[in-house]
Amino acid sequence: MKVVQVLHMNGGVGETSYANNSLLQKKVITLTKPITVSAMTDLYYTLSPAKICIADLGCSSGPNTLFVVSELIKTVVRLHKNLGQLTASPEFLVFLNDLPGNDFNTIFKSLLPNFQENLRQELGRGFGPCFVTAAPGSFYGRLFPSQSLHFVHSSYSLQWLSRVPEGLEENKGNIYMASTSPPNVLKAYFNQFQIDFSYFLKCRGEELMTGGRMVLTFLGRKSDDPSSKEGCYIWELMASALNDMVTEGLIEEEKMNSFNIPQYTPSPTEVKSEVERDGSFIIDQLEVSTIKWNVYENETCYSSEVTKDGGYNVAKLMRAVAEPLLASHFGKLIIDEVFCRYREIVADRMAKERTEFFNVVVSMTKRA
Amino acid sequence: MKVVQVLHMNGGVGETSYANNSLLQKKVITLTKPITVSAMTDLYYTLSPAKICIADLGCSSGPNTLFVVSELIKTVVRLHKNLGQLTASPEFLVFLNDLPGNDFNTIFKSLLPNFQENLRQELGRGFGPCFVTAAPGSFYGRLFPSQSLHFVHSSYSLQWLSRVPEGLEENKGNIYMASTSPPNVLKAYFNQFQIDFSYFLKCRGEELMTGGRMVLTFLGRKSDDPSSKEGCYIWELMASALNDMVTEGLIEEEKMNSFNIPQYTPSPTEVKSEVERDGSFIIDQLEVSTIKWNVYENETCYSSEVTKDGGYNVAKLMRAVAEPLLASHFGKLIIDEVFCRYREIVADRMAKERTEFFNVVVSMTKRA
Repeated sequence: MKVVQVLHMNGGVGETSYANNSLLQKKVITLTKPITVSAMTDLYYTLSPAKICIADLGCSSGPNTLFVVSELIKTVVRLHKNLGQLTASPEFLVFLNDLPGNDFNTIFKSLLPNFQENLRQELGRGFGPCFVTAAPGSFYGRLFPSQSLHFVHSSYSLQWLSRVPEGLEENKGNIYMASTSPPNVLKAYFNQFQIDFSYFLKCRGEELMTGGRMVLTFLGRKSDDPSSKEGCYIWELMASALNDMVTEGLIEEEKMNSFNIPQYTPSPTEVKSEVERDGSFIIDQLEVSTIKWNVYENETCYSSEVTKDGGYNVAKLMRAVAEPLLASHFGKLIIDEVFCRYREIVADRMAKERTEFFNVVVSMTKRA
Repeated sequence: MKVVQVLHMNGGVGETSYANNSLLQKKVITLTKPITVSAMTDLYYTLSPAKICIADLGCSSGPNTLFVVSELIKTVVRLHKNLGQLTASPEFLVFLNDLPGNDFNTIFKSLLPNFQENLRQELGRGFGPCFVTAAPGSFYGRLFPSQSLHFVHSSYSLQWLSRVPEGLEENKGNIYMASTSPPNVLKAYFNQFQIDFSYFLKCRGEELMTGGRMVLTFLGRKSDDPSSKEGCYIWELMASALNDMVTEGLIEEEKMNSFNIPQYTPSPTEVKSEVERDGSFIIDQLEVSTIKWNVYENETCYSSEVTKDGGYNVAKLMRAVAEPLLASHFGKLIIDEVFCRYREIVADRMAKERTEFFNVVVSMTKRA
């Protein structure tokens, strides 16, 4: 399976689309906002650039696509105004990155006009021109010219690996790392994470200018145990649903055994260790936060029918993210059934356990 | 009519698509290639940049989209190799620009992989990284940060105005400037050209760095008479087809009288005069070339059935370009009939007259 070709969020704007099921990702960006804003503030005070080049890696195509960029621009324009600067605010050049299969047309036609209009309304006159471009490609490779970027942001994208690790033959009955995965499976996953993340750091180290900032948020874990429930449970429950279907003869066992999710949910220690090994960045902040699986739980703008049905909400959220991977391996026909079962399994666990996603956030400065 | 929303080439890859009917535009780019290559050669010798930022304005989405960019990159890499440089070739940052309705997804998914692969095969090792991005928006406005570009190219796009000129009420029976247009109609068209092109020059003057180059090719005319057949005849014949349909009651007269093409086919004198008035550029070359309406005429790779049927070829070419404008004003139902009649009218004229498109090419350098 070529991850570059298969991995994308569910398209369109329907019931199961990513655009309609990305509240979790939005909340994570909001949670991380103080760190992002603080990094941009430092950058602005330190470098005072007349032009600020920002890249958002893994931007997708939906309500979150321009959310961080918008916050970053507001931060700079307000700082500029507060300093009583009489000159025009800096110009912004924004690169929205995602894999080439991402729906950039929708960003340009539907999202960009509102984004520009909202900024103009909120910031009024004196808001420097902002140019938004699309830069397609895998972030596990060079995307931008050398030393051309001031700020790199990426949220909930870097847990995706460039490929399914090699050597997972013994991970039978699992679709990701799990408590029952043999040690060489855990090692294979970790190796792929190291290969991918170290190359990511090398590329961004070349693209960011000295003093440039990078804020990365991974879906990760706090524990040092890679098979800890913190990062793996959500997939273990999906494996449960699939295994039930294998037992009932709805999925071939061989198909199940050869399916593995190209993801790695790292710990802060693992992230730190790769950044230090690479050596191009100073870590300014490294934090772990958590967010409940049922992100609708305390949302007052939804009916209690919606907010309370955690199983339904989590199944929809995971379907928006994982359907293309599952459909490409198992075929489209089983998808409804998988997520129907998954919903029940998830609902049962949520009623009995504390179920949370763990976010590892790291904020860095490019060394001289 | 908002040109920004309505103007686009016919999408897809079908019989009437722009992608399948853009041989004229390709030939014009080829005709202009010596001027483009010479401008890039001068730029490279003069500025020797480590990074070259190129913008192609009005790139569309089809076989021509990356054609010029590819030639420009090859030019630089060969110059670099010929100079015996041991360092890596410059890095390239390419901005593909068109209106936000352009199909950028197809560029990224279908055209970009071949483009990169062909460059790698033709240039071999030592070809510096090339990053291709999309920059949506009207070129009658700022698109890029100040002084950020080395090279701007645009072919067969700048004859499109930002809007249909005001004050064309008396242009009855015509859809563009014509020999029967009253003087105030010609003046209205020229005024809009001046407004649009002068603003275009102002914007590009801000975006190009000192010593940067710009090569623009207009569909234009040689004559100083704005209603000369050189620029207008192709539309006069389309007006003929529409007028016949008005006579037969297939189109309302009022509809016909209120339709005008948002285009201006300038003379070299007019182009020169605007560039000089703006003052940001030195004109290095200004030329007019011609190309036959039937671009398939001498193409050996098509059957004689195809190459000889000029009426069919020109009607298809014009349909790929003008269908969205016509359909938005007259409705989709009349389109087949219009182009069926147009084909016959065009074929008749081509048999009796010399029928050519006129290309005005200007190559400029940004002043200090």
